[in-house]
Amino acid sequence: MVVTVYLLIVYDVGVERVNRVKSYLRTELHWVQNSVFEGEVTESQFRRIETNLERIIDRERDSVIIYSFRSERAMNRNVLGLEKSPLDVIL
Amino acid sequence: MVVTVYLLIVYDVGVERVNRVKSYLRTELHWVQNSVFEGEVTESQFRRIETNLERIIDRERDSVIIYSFRSERAMNRNVLGLEKSPLDVIL
Repeated sequence: MVVTVYLLIVYDVGVERVNRVKSYLRTELHWVQNSVFEGEVTESQFRRIETNLERIIDRERDSVIIYSFRSERAMNRNVLGLEKSPLDVIL
Repeated sequence: MVVTVYLLIVYDVGVERVNRVKSYLRTELHWVQNSVFEGEVTESQFRRIETNLERIIDRERDSVIIYSFRSERAMNRNVLGLEKSPLDVIL
């Protein structure tokens, strides 16, 4: 059985790097909202995402937080206002 | 024993409402990064936060996602680059 984890990534990066971070993360995870991505990944995918993000960001100026959970069931999601990217449409 | 939940709030709101959302959430939770707040709250605090956010945002244009977890232990946090607001300094 492949072990997976559920990721929630938020980032606050320089405007000159935002597009690169966003287009890269779109290849790995689901865009949820401005600067927020989610998705289920394998351990090796998780490490690859970390390595690739480290290459894109400027460690002195940018901030990326990767929250990881044993599964999506660990979280409840309550949306106020617009649901910019309904996850159930994608999954 | 008071039941608490751990919240992670991300928001994507119109520029004319960002300051109001941010200054309100600063009264309830810890600012973690641009448009990201965290904190442990009681069930009644959780409902108050939802009610107050509903009053501030424009439901047609803005998006707020409230992730809730049974406790902070449900999540692992991995920061790449700058830790804009070291949570351990605040807690």
